[in-house]
Amino acid sequence: RNRCLVTGGAGFVGSHLCTYLVERGDHVICLDNLFTGSKQNIAHLLHYDNFEVIRHDVVNPILLEVDQIFHLACPASPIHYKYNPIKTLKTSFLGTMNMLGLAKRTRARFLLTSTSEVYGDPLEHPQTESYWGNVNPIGERSCYDEGKRVAETLAFDYQREHGIEVRVVRIFNTYGPRMALDDGRVVSNFLAQALEGHPLTIYGEGKQTRSFQYVSDLIKGLVTVMDGPETGPFNVGNPTEFTMIELAQLVKEVANPDAEIIFQENTADDPAKRKPDISKIKNTLGWEPKVALRDGLLLMIDDFKERLKHER
Amino acid sequence: RNRCLVTGGAGFVGSHLCTYLVERGDHVICLDNLFTGSKQNIAHLLHYDNFEVIRHDVVNPILLEVDQIFHLACPASPIHYKYNPIKTLKTSFLGTMNMLGLAKRTRARFLLTSTSEVYGDPLEHPQTESYWGNVNPIGERSCYDEGKRVAETLAFDYQREHGIEVRVVRIFNTYGPRMALDDGRVVSNFLAQALEGHPLTIYGEGKQTRSFQYVSDLIKGLVTVMDGPETGPFNVGNPTEFTMIELAQLVKEVANPDAEIIFQENTADDPAKRKPDISKIKNTLGWEPKVALRDGLLLMIDDFKERLKHER
Ligand SMILES: NC(=O)c1ccc[n+]([C@@H]2O[C@H](COP(=O)([O-])OP(=O)(O)OC[C@H]3O[C@@H](n4cnc5c(N)ncnc54)[C@H](O)[C@@H]3O)[C@@H](O)[C@H]2O)c1
Ligand SMILES: NC(=O)c1ccc[n+]([C@@H]2O[C@H](COP(=O)([O-])OP(=O)(O)OC[C@H]3O[C@@H](n4cnc5c(N)ncnc54)[C@H](O)[C@@H]3O)[C@@H](O)[C@H]2O)c1
Ligand SMILES: O=c1ccn([C@@H]2O[C@H](COP(=O)(O)OP(=O)(O)O)[C@@H](O)[C@H]2O)c(=O)[nH]1
Ligand SMILES: O=c1ccn([C@@H]2O[C@H](COP(=O)(O)OP(=O)(O)O)[C@@H](O)[C@H]2O)c(=O)[nH]1
Ligand SMILES: O=c1ccn([C@@H]2O[C@H](COP(=O)(O)OP(=O)(O)O)[C@@H](O)[C@H]2O)c(=O)[nH]1
Ligand SMILES: O=c1ccn([C@@H]2O[C@H](COP(=O)(O)OP(=O)(O)O)[C@@H](O)[C@H]2O)c(=O)[nH]1
Repeated sequence: RNRCLVTGGAGFVGSHLCTYLVERGDHVICLDNLFTGSKQNIAHLLHYDNFEVIRHDVVNPILLEVDQIFHLACPASPIHYKYNPIKTLKTSFLGTMNMLGLAKRTRARFLLTSTSEVYGDPLEHPQTESYWGNVNPIGERSCYDEGKRVAETLAFDYQREHGIEVRVVRIFNTYGPRMALDDGRVVSNFLAQALEGHPLTIYGEGKQTRSFQYVSDLIKGLVTVMDGPETGPFNVGNPTEFTMIELAQLVKEVANPDAEIIFQENTADDPAKRKPDISKIKNTLGWEPKVALRDGLLLMIDDFKERLKHER
Repeated sequence: RNRCLVTGGAGFVGSHLCTYLVERGDHVICLDNLFTGSKQNIAHLLHYDNFEVIRHDVVNPILLEVDQIFHLACPASPIHYKYNPIKTLKTSFLGTMNMLGLAKRTRARFLLTSTSEVYGDPLEHPQTESYWGNVNPIGERSCYDEGKRVAETLAFDYQREHGIEVRVVRIFNTYGPRMALDDGRVVSNFLAQALEGHPLTIYGEGKQTRSFQYVSDLIKGLVTVMDGPETGPFNVGNPTEFTMIELAQLVKEVANPDAEIIFQENTADDPAKRKPDISKIKNTLGWEPKVALRDGLLLMIDDFKERLKHER
């Protein structure tokens, strides 16, 4: 049986990944400090024999025996990673170092969930993996962006220096059921606002763009890269680009046609546009996203309605 | 008496900084693991009452009582930082984190010696401090470049989160007496080659540029920033730009007119040009470099001749 460690496994993406791996029949260890994740996200897995949970902070070393390490642990939304930027940096650097140390000792294969934020406010559009990025090293977002960049550096250097099997995925904006209601990301904000009859808050003029990927597409991408023969980095995202105004209109349409839209001040260093070039993963591993934004939004409405009832 | 900690104090820049501070009358603690530094570099300071040495690796925590921390410890030449890239990353991240932790506990002022390499292979020329850089996150130089970028992020986040008094200096190529003979940097290579009658080795076509600062100018810059009121980052360098061909010709002229020049293959990701815009430090703190390249080279010939006799 394949023994998989999923750090950050009680978070949004992690819980979907654990579900996929458990259902595939792997033995799954979910490791999480429950900073932004929750027990509720993995409650449906607790009765499986091939699933277990460890409450642990990746900033500290840990000894485990595993074959594959999916390293996701890291606050991912601006609200959460700016809450304690030093802790975010420690999680990114020390957490990745410890998991690479674990990979080195056990000879496990290691996958890092990096991010499109390594491209910063990109001057190349769409972004290919060979683009070096445009990132502010000393701004308010830097703890996340630079933390992930140096985590990638660590991963490549462990591969070069110790021959660890490394996989690096750069995830673009992802949405779906179990997104934290309070994480401030745009899809969860808009959908919760629409369902609660509050105005949808567009930051800035709303002309900035993002490309949104449904979580099931991402999970297939992660597993494809982990089980595939190449290090990457691979962009994993949906290349269909939307302005925030277009997204707000779509959310209104599917969730509440009467919802208002209002404009608020934007945050510092907000990237103006972002869209993955996914030729590399498509051509080498045959992966591409399947779920269109409208369909994906419809798939998360029930989960959001249910949780808005209980969590607020 | 001002208690100064100089990490990396037995290195090239550190030894000149310790000398300056000891002569100014400060109490100086030189902390070094002697990876690229040497006891010989600080031998002339050992008889001073206000000087002491600790052999310690900044990757590990340490308790000291100080007022100012000049944090230099980090391998600085490509040969040395590529020798063990993972150790370079640990030194940059953990070393800076530990020294910031020390600054937080003692309320000492903290200065980071960052580098022009945070600009990478710059697309903006000359480089101002507001330029975000063009750095490969996963290449062979990344352990140094990304290590320094994330060290800057840490410094700014300790300032924002804990109110530490932080100073950040981005040092451009510096040369002078006590440069390690084997560190592979271009000025030390060319000068040693010329003095030993070997051919000067230009990597690539020799059209790449650098701007070379004499070490005494740098030391005044570091102290000016540390004692000044502003965080920075400040570029500290000499804006006069030379191609490697021009540098080779100048070294021939001052050290050995008969020396040959040969061309060799260049290394990966070598920046094509580099030149500091120093308006910020000039306008806010009144610092600017004084020593021209020809004069600086003349000032280091005796030291190099002496050491070539004993060290080779
Ligand atoms: N969701 C996206 O759009 C997106 C985009 C790019 C990258 N990513 C990356 O994917 C990963 C998962 O993101 P997510 O959207 O599921 O976020 P999330 O916040 O829902 O999940 C992160 C999980 O990591 C845990 N965690 C945080 N710090 C930890 C620590 N020090 N020790 C142990 N556990 C810790 C949290 O408790 C949480 O369960 C992250 O690495 C993130 O950077 C996500
Ligand atoms: N010289 C330049 O042109 C230049 C340019 C840009 C930045 N800098 C920065 O200035 C600083 C000093 O550079 P330098 O040219 O004097 O290099 P150097 O190699 O001569 O000095 C570095 C010193 O740090 C020590 N050191 C390295 N790792 C250590 C560790 N883990 N613990 C304790 N000590 C450690 C070394 O033994 C050495 O004495 C470095 O931070 C470097 O990045 C130098
Ligand atoms: O099973 C392991 C093996 C290592 N590590 C940690 O991973 C880090 C990096 O390990 P590596 O072997 O690279 O570093 P070293 O111990 O040589 O500094 C170290 O801090 C270890 O404590 C861990 O948490 N679990
Ligand atoms: O309520 C919100 C939350 C976010 N955004 C904008 O949506 C985009 C995506 O933000 P998010 O935090 O979801 O992701 P990231 O910036 O990390 O891509 C950014 O331009 C935000 O300014 C918005 O208009 N309204
Ligand atoms: O005098 C000190 C104080 C702290 N540290 C180290 O600096 C790091 C960062 O300190 P901080 O207080 O920020 O972190 P914390 O201990 O809260 O994780 C820690 O690893 C400490 O061991 C140190 O070496 N000397
Ligand atoms: O013997 C040498 C050593 C270096 N270089 C070149 O000189 C420049 C400066 O290299 P150095 O290592 O001194 O500093 P850095 O690249 O860090 O600026 C680079 O373009 C190198 O390719 C060279 O032509 N001959």
